[in-house]
Amino acid sequence: MTDFTHLDDQGRVRMVDVAGKDVTRRVAIARGRIDMTADTLDRIFGRNVKKGNVLEAARIAGVMAAKRTADLIPMCHPLNLTHVRVDFFPDPGHNRIEIEAEASLAGRTGVEMEALTAVSVAALTIYDMCKSYDKGMIISDIHLKSKTGGKSGTFLADRYGHP
Amino acid sequence: MTDFTHLDDQGRVRMVDVAGKDVTRRVAIARGRIDMTADTLDRIFGRNVKKGNVLEAARIAGVMAAKRTADLIPMCHPLNLTHVRVDFFPDPGHNRIEIEAEASLAGRTGVEMEALTAVSVAALTIYDMCKSYDKGMIISDIHLKSKTGGKSGTFLADRYGHP
Amino acid sequence: MTDFTHLDDQGRVRMVDVAGKDVTRRVAIARGRIDMTADTLDRIFGRNVKKGNVLEAARIAGVMAAKRTADLIPMCHPLNLTHVRVDFFPDPGHNRIEIEAEASLAGRTGVEMEALTAVSVAALTIYDMCKSYDKGMIISDIHLKSKTGGKSGTFLADRYGHP
Amino acid sequence: MTDFTHLDDQGRVRMVDVAGKDVTRRVAIARGRIDMTADTLDRIFGRNVKKGNVLEAARIAGVMAAKRTADLIPMCHPLNLTHVRVDFFPDPGHNRIEIEAEASLAGRTGVEMEALTAVSVAALTIYDMCKSYDKGMIISDIHLKSKTGGKSGTFLADRYGHP
Amino acid sequence: MTDFTHLDDQGRVRMVDVAGKDVTRRVAIARGRIDMTADTLDRIFGRNVKKGNVLEAARIAGVMAAKRTADLIPMCHPLNLTHVRVDFFPDPGHNRIEIEAEASLAGRTGVEMEALTAVSVAALTIYDMCKSYDKGMIISDIHLKSKTGGKSGTFLADRYGHP
Amino acid sequence: MTDFTHLDDQGRVRMVDVAGKDVTRRVAIARGRIDMTADTLDRIFGRNVKKGNVLEAARIAGVMAAKRTADLIPMCHPLNLTHVRVDFFPDPGHNRIEIEAEASLAGRTGVEMEALTAVSVAALTIYDMCKSYDKGMIISDIHLKSKTGGKSGTFLADRYGHP
Repeated sequence: MTDFTHLDDQGRVRMVDVAGKDVTRRVAIARGRIDMTADTLDRIFGRNVKKGNVLEAARIAGVMAAKRTADLIPMCHPLNLTHVRVDFFPDPGHNRIEIEAEASLAGRTGVEMEALTAVSVAALTIYDMCKSYDKGMIISDIHLKSKTGGKSGTFLADRYGHP
Repeated sequence: MTDFTHLDDQGRVRMVDVAGKDVTRRVAIARGRIDMTADTLDRIFGRNVKKGNVLEAARIAGVMAAKRTADLIPMCHPLNLTHVRVDFFPDPGHNRIEIEAEASLAGRTGVEMEALTAVSVAALTIYDMCKSYDKGMIISDIHLKSKTGGKSGTFLADRYGHP
Repeated sequence: MTDFTHLDDQGRVRMVDVAGKDVTRRVAIARGRIDMTADTLDRIFGRNVKKGNVLEAARIAGVMAAKRTADLIPMCHPLNLTHVRVDFFPDPGHNRIEIEAEASLAGRTGVEMEALTAVSVAALTIYDMCKSYDKGMIISDIHLKSKTGGKSGTFLADRYGHP
Repeated sequence: MTDFTHLDDQGRVRMVDVAGKDVTRRVAIARGRIDMTADTLDRIFGRNVKKGNVLEAARIAGVMAAKRTADLIPMCHPLNLTHVRVDFFPDPGHNRIEIEAEASLAGRTGVEMEALTAVSVAALTIYDMCKSYDKGMIISDIHLKSKTGGKSGTFLADRYGHP
Repeated sequence: MTDFTHLDDQGRVRMVDVAGKDVTRRVAIARGRIDMTADTLDRIFGRNVKKGNVLEAARIAGVMAAKRTADLIPMCHPLNLTHVRVDFFPDPGHNRIEIEAEASLAGRTGVEMEALTAVSVAALTIYDMCKSYDKGMIISDIHLKSKTGGKSGTFLADRYGHP
Repeated sequence: MTDFTHLDDQGRVRMVDVAGKDVTRRVAIARGRIDMTADTLDRIFGRNVKKGNVLEAARIAGVMAAKRTADLIPMCHPLNLTHVRVDFFPDPGHNRIEIEAEASLAGRTGVEMEALTAVSVAALTIYDMCKSYDKGMIISDIHLKSKTGGKSGTFLADRYGHP
């Protein structure tokens, strides 16, 4: 049976036990962006997209996805978020929209994944609403901008948009 | 009541009626990548991540997310996917992993969103599994690589990894 | 064992087999309304609600709920809706908003429940978005307005708003 | 960019931050009713409905829906309900069934939406179980009967069943 | 990169493509049982369980779980079931309840998992409803009793209740 | 109306109120097994199953199912699990795999159902991954092995594998 066990030990997935962690206020902010054609950007902000208000749909989808993070990401702990915010920052100079999401709660584990999931699903929703005009849109630079609370303390991305 | 209606018309979201579309075989392939430190890449492929087999978890999460696309993206039609595939291509020269997902079915509407969602959630899962080592990982370049079937015909991204 | 079986037969829930039904185009339209104070109605259409665009949130929630009807209603069959529409008709004379939802598909079973669920969840979302101003709102008169397709044929409510 | 931001500010949906609210015991009771033909009411209480025990299915659907409120209502906070109750009160004089749901927990935000959602989905389930006999059923008068706990204190509907 | 790929090939999970399979009528029947004390069995059939009608709750939970099989089992295809049935057969001689579930549809892939999931969740629900009386209940012998339709043809378990 | 009420009282399902229970650390361990042919067992541990790494898929499915227990089991309370673990113990002498799951949290109600659900869904996933080779697999002996915390205190199954 040793061999079997050995094979099994190479990488069995586990949900880390967070029972021993402190309940602290935890906040995470994630960012990302979606690049598109100038025409698509105009349509979105000119409310000229056949499927409807793109950013409102994306915002709602992002908030709802944040609440379902533990359903999507296998080893994420289920959490009772107390706040989610999704905002959009158009950047007409680069034909893109920056997306920022913030999630927070008082709990035993961080909310980075909730913020990152909100950004990702908001971006996917923008793609879906506009894909009949522009299938070449690209979702990029999804990263954790900052995080506070918890044992690992504060994290700040060195600079925006870098690897 | 005119004013109210006018306001309401500016951007009310709708789920496009696809009843009139033909049932054809539809395939979509999406790609994206996640950049990380060299150490994180080594851990993933050396099976040295405390949370377990990163790519297996990400693959399963990607497939399961593809099946739930219509739950996440507000105006997506519910579909009965006949196939989903998620693959990873390590690129040690750039300290990144390329992610590719393919979705297909015989139906009345395309499966671009399913493939893009699979890539996004697979990338988020990689982030989650490794975030205790590397909070600076960046998810990038999520785009539709190709699509076949349906009235709009074949789509091919101009070139890989472009904006 | 007879007694046990007898007890069990009194009302065991079943999901009716629809395999023998024809695949036809099926459309259902449901309506309902939500009554509120004049001030709340003004806030909604004046875009003066702190939680944001009430009708856009309600519309999206209604469409998404229609897609999840089989998850909510125990004996509903899972369906691949091809279209959902949710619309709002303000009635300032009565301080209310009429809600109408339409669902359709080509399938073996009707979509009444999908349309009724969309109306219900859209109404609940209006309540949620405005409840800090007006806890006395009342959701009423949710009914099937019409239905076409299927063996039972066309159904038209005798008149609007009746019991 | 100002114009874009301005447009965006008109109604962007947000999930209110409840982190600062006190953890108190919170209870909400909602009511509603469903009107039907005398024959349908007889079938339900006579256990003569082909799809099975209508009220048991409706009760279970209502409780399960209460637990999924945050999945359905976009800006609702996810909560760990400690109790849900759904009860039915036949009113043969009016050919209707009154539905009452109670939800409670110790938390930072109220449970009105959970109680209202339980009533709504219980009513929809009654409709679904009986719709082959009676497509004209009407769901009405869904309202918050009372609420205790939280900063806004106790709420009592002025009177039962009013608009 | 060869080593990485080699590692990756050892067991990457895939959802088999069923697009080439025929649409045929497919039926699967699964069985299982739950063993309990004589007192617990009496309580269930005597309707003397504080949490309510055990078998009705279990039946509904089983049907609802069948509809969500593709959400639970990673590589299961999403399906539109046309029928689910869950039945209970008390066996007082052995202090157990036999559980049988049947699922069917016209589709490209079998419904074994749907029937097995219905049995499993029905059994878990019986456990949950009665666990305050009897934590020693055991769920056993969950197996596929028969299956028809599809390329692999008819399957019949050699004999009932065997290992 | 008395008769109606009387009927209704016989077994109406309820979600027990746990608000008065203490918040304590609660741990539950469940076990079960799946019997198969010697060939299937060899394939699983030899990584020779076409659908991929069986145990990794089953482990992830088990953990994810534990998080969704309250969605599946009608009267289960929603919980924020802090830990889930799923392990497999091959028993080549009997051509079976033992499955063990542990769930824990600090909360007002036990996590027995979460551990039992994880075992059940892990077993179903093994079945699904291998069913093209072996439709005769049998899932058995799913039981609560131990439980600590809460008013009812510690529970230990008398002995392993008994009825």
